[in-house]
Amino acid sequence: MINVVDNRSALVLFSGGLDSTTTLSYALSKNYKIIALTINYKQRHCYEIEASKKIIRKYHNVNHIIFDIDLSKIGGSALTDSSIDVPNKNTTGIPVTYVPARNTIFLSIAASYAEKYMIRDIFIGVNAIDYSGYPDCRPEFIKSYEQTINIGTKSGSEGSPFKIHTPLINLTKSEIITLGTTLGVDYKDTVSCYSLNEKGEACGECDSCTFRRQGFADAGIDDPTVYKKK
Amino acid sequence: MINVVDNRSALVLFSGGLDSTTTLSYALSKNYKIIALTINYKQRHCYEIEASKKIIRKYHNVNHIIFDIDLSKIGGSALTDSSIDVPNKNTTGIPVTYVPARNTIFLSIAASYAEKYMIRDIFIGVNAIDYSGYPDCRPEFIKSYEQTINIGTKSGSEGSPFKIHTPLINLTKSEIITLGTTLGVDYKDTVSCYSLNEKGEACGECDSCTFRRQGFADAGIDDPTVYKKK
Repeated sequence: MINVVDNRSALVLFSGGLDSTTTLSYALSKNYKIIALTINYKQRHCYEIEASKKIIRKYHNVNHIIFDIDLSKIGGSALTDSSIDVPNKNTTGIPVTYVPARNTIFLSIAASYAEKYMIRDIFIGVNAIDYSGYPDCRPEFIKSYEQTINIGTKSGSEGSPFKIHTPLINLTKSEIITLGTTLGVDYKDTVSCYSLNEKGEACGECDSCTFRRQGFADAGIDDPTVYKKK
Repeated sequence: MINVVDNRSALVLFSGGLDSTTTLSYALSKNYKIIALTINYKQRHCYEIEASKKIIRKYHNVNHIIFDIDLSKIGGSALTDSSIDVPNKNTTGIPVTYVPARNTIFLSIAASYAEKYMIRDIFIGVNAIDYSGYPDCRPEFIKSYEQTINIGTKSGSEGSPFKIHTPLINLTKSEIITLGTTLGVDYKDTVSCYSLNEKGEACGECDSCTFRRQGFADAGIDDPTVYKKK
């Protein structure tokens, strides 16, 4: 049971990945009381859910909610349809790992929880620099979504608007890793790879691994990720 | 398995209620091939789901998808939290039957399916005349949502935008009923009441019953709804 929250509470969309863990630590550093919302959308990389639980156990006073929505019923993405392979190198354009309307769905579930708990501050770790070109990670999407939710909810339409915070949106991956390291994030537990093997080893080749690997290298910080041997 | 659709296909958000059944018939009258999307959100009036199946059986060539999302885990509404009573008369302001961010969530699931099936036309039976004051039923919300989804999806951002159709938005309830009757809708099977009893009888007193009852009276059309005896 979550206690009634106050104006210094925030809801953080939290996947258990590198970006959202950094976002969580950032929000904590700003002295928000946190509800971390993990969406179990039956994604291919379901290790994320276990990672999210493991990470949250290290933080005190963070409420963790796991919400289930089965986007594999919709499919249309390599992350939600096992018949579509995850590409092992960067492709041009928006890749097949794009999940139709994913962040719109996730932010809407977040807004619903936030309205229930009278929270106004929602954090999401989207990034539009070292990213896969997903349209729902861009600043113009976040701005438009914030306007929409403030028209379409009781809170927003009655003068108590939501604010969607995107502290990472203009940072490079190495800047994100540097920020998180300063904040004490242990990246060992965070999962980025779209194609972890059964031993929990990252493939080292998918879009997400490529950005992560390069980010640690550029930051000059040891990469704790366990990559599978070639 | 749904066949690949063409440009004359549409996705209709379909609850099994009076408004969405009229919207479905309207879209059919415009010669769209239809996917009807019913969201089972563990609502109090779960009779809607059964009603939706019963109604669809009467239409030929309509694909019916039922998608589950348990909004009772979020709660915050008389429709999703059994500890909050449904009011039996009109109240001022946005009533407790408001479900936080419901239409934003539903439209986002609809957009995800539409993108998967390469559909550009989405219909929703929102109405801003004889309605309960829900902020996510108003034209300004729909307009803003459409802009947002066209920024935040692959289709929208690559020049193949979604169009959200709201054929009922400026009609009175009696005009909706007149339209549907002209289109051959059998309103007997549609469910509006928030508090049906175990016999499937409508309460006749909730907001939704009040609008429905008055609509039939104003339209001069016999009301086929079975109301419980007082």
